[in-house]
Amino acid sequence: MRCVIVWATWAVWQEMLSVLATKKIVLQTLDLAWSDRSAWKVIQTYLWPKTVIACQSIDFSHYDVALFAAGSDVSKEFVPRAIASWCRVIDNASLFRYDEHVPLVVPCVNKWSIWSASLIANPNCTTAIAAVVLYPIYQKFGIKTCIMSTYQAASGAGAAWVEELDAQLCAYPQTIDKYTVFPHALACNVIPRIDAVQENGYTKEEMKVVWEMRKIFADPDLAVSCTAVRVPTMRAHAESITIQTTTPIDASVLHEIRSNNPHVLVVDDPSKDIYPLPRTAQWTYPVQVGRIRQSLVFGEYGVDLFVCGDQLLRWAALNAVEILEEIM
Amino acid sequence: MRCVIVWATWAVWQEMLSVLATKKIVLQTLDLAWSDRSAWKVIQTYLWPKTVIACQSIDFSHYDVALFAAGSDVSKEFVPRAIASWCRVIDNASLFRYDEHVPLVVPCVNKWSIWSASLIANPNCTTAIAAVVLYPIYQKFGIKTCIMSTYQAASGAGAAWVEELDAQLCAYPQTIDKYTVFPHALACNVIPRIDAVQENGYTKEEMKVVWEMRKIFADPDLAVSCTAVRVPTMRAHAESITIQTTTPIDASVLHEIRSNNPHVLVVDDPSKDIYPLPRTAQWTYPVQVGRIRQSLVFGEYGVDLFVCGDQLLRWAALNAVEILEEIM
Repeated sequence: MRCVIVWATWAVWQEMLSVLATKKIVLQTLDLAWSDRSAWKVIQTYLWPKTVIACQSIDFSHYDVALFAAGSDVSKEFVPRAIASWCRVIDNASLFRYDEHVPLVVPCVNKWSIWSASLIANPNCTTAIAAVVLYPIYQKFGIKTCIMSTYQAASGAGAAWVEELDAQLCAYPQTIDKYTVFPHALACNVIPRIDAVQENGYTKEEMKVVWEMRKIFADPDLAVSCTAVRVPTMRAHAESITIQTTTPIDASVLHEIRSNNPHVLVVDDPSKDIYPLPRTAQWTYPVQVGRIRQSLVFGEYGVDLFVCGDQLLRWAALNAVEILEEIM
Repeated sequence: MRCVIVWATWAVWQEMLSVLATKKIVLQTLDLAWSDRSAWKVIQTYLWPKTVIACQSIDFSHYDVALFAAGSDVSKEFVPRAIASWCRVIDNASLFRYDEHVPLVVPCVNKWSIWSASLIANPNCTTAIAAVVLYPIYQKFGIKTCIMSTYQAASGAGAAWVEELDAQLCAYPQTIDKYTVFPHALACNVIPRIDAVQENGYTKEEMKVVWEMRKIFADPDLAVSCTAVRVPTMRAHAESITIQTTTPIDASVLHEIRSNNPHVLVVDDPSKDIYPLPRTAQWTYPVQVGRIRQSLVFGEYGVDLFVCGDQLLRWAALNAVEILEEIM
């Protein structure tokens, strides 16, 4: 298998190479492409030193798969080129996610949709983390309604935001009010807006959860609502989720469902202070789930739960590499 | 009016005196009572220096009202004594909140229940913040269901927790893993457990919201669910709330409802980054409300909103003083 990773940031680059190494994935070729400006730079990774090639000069016919980790602008220009050269594409950007001809894939949910596709979209991290946990419930009990409030890490907004939070925390308490990339100081705060505000008042991040959950579960009638909130954590997102099921659900059986799922780690003994935490979920592959409770609102037709997953891994790196594994 | 504040912590003490001063409340007597150990200490407040009296030696017949800011143990011992001496009691502890003979009061919701009561209970801060915002909606549209996820500040757990978070932030990033009062480090983390875990898997903090919302709204059928999460903020709680109403509700009219309510401040222009924030809500009296959206799950019968209020003021100080004002 010959692969090229197109236009990742340094952080995502490292994550992808780390996941490829951890999973011992053998590739005939692995090239890294960036802007013309960055071409011929040598990226010293712990795997191997690698000379960056320029996006403009890529001959996609030399590759079997291109992993696009760029924004929608880069995807718009280069993804059609790759496909025209019979190079299959895994795209992290949101550009093609809502195209009805493009499968949106979380491998443990809908890997069947990968087989014949020349372009596969990688979902938003918030959706991917929830989908991994909710799909086994969806399969066994059916889900009618999903109401979510998030606790999202700075890394979801990019490296500059992590650096700004880090700088605010380092300076605490003196200069904690300094911020340039965040709209407000994030240290000692929570910011209830992520991405652009849509006409209906929800943010794009919130609507991504709605649109993508429906598409991944292939259920356009799924009722989903989300309030997306940035909190001062570094790289793991947490989500408080209430679901209403179509058939009765017993909170106690969920423990068993989870324990047979390698993508999920049940951490649910709250009286012993065992529950999902951003600081224990970061840098790990499984999505943590805990605080599983029979719903006080939907009764036997619902549960409340709390999940936590490393957003950089789940979104950009791990999910994309899992799709690559399926293609291989 | 002759008052005594019984067994407040230094922080709550200061908050109460500050609210009394700001509201220019004239009292004939204002005494401060504490443990025998602390009696005869002089508390230098910005209002006046005050000699602390010992709880054991209080003659409650000298007072018209006693404000209890202690835990349930102190309330259990001294509240019956005060009432027996015809001194009316406003109690911040949770001990008597669920007694059917004791009104649980948020003055802008149910001040009518104060009149004849010798003992008035002050609700949990999380409930009080939500009740201030939800009651006008409850009155106009009816509320059937309320689903809440919280973002609660360290101060809700007491001064020791604020100090520990402060110490963690000051030491960042070197010794951020040091913690003794929290069950986990709170800096760069969120902790999805507050108070003791109940038999149904919900924590006592979560069940307080359920029990107290029903009691304050005098609606035992109100379906309420809560996931209570501690976040690394200092003294304002935030809450993501989804409500289902009994009659159709239009998200746009909510702006008008709020603008006629002095206890609420509408901050809702998210595309300009105007929304409730812990860092702007702290040290202020009104509860901030924003991110008001027509529900994607309940359609015309629901809204999503985000609220934020200073938990020390709303719970211990402001709400209790507002009850005192009603008694006066």
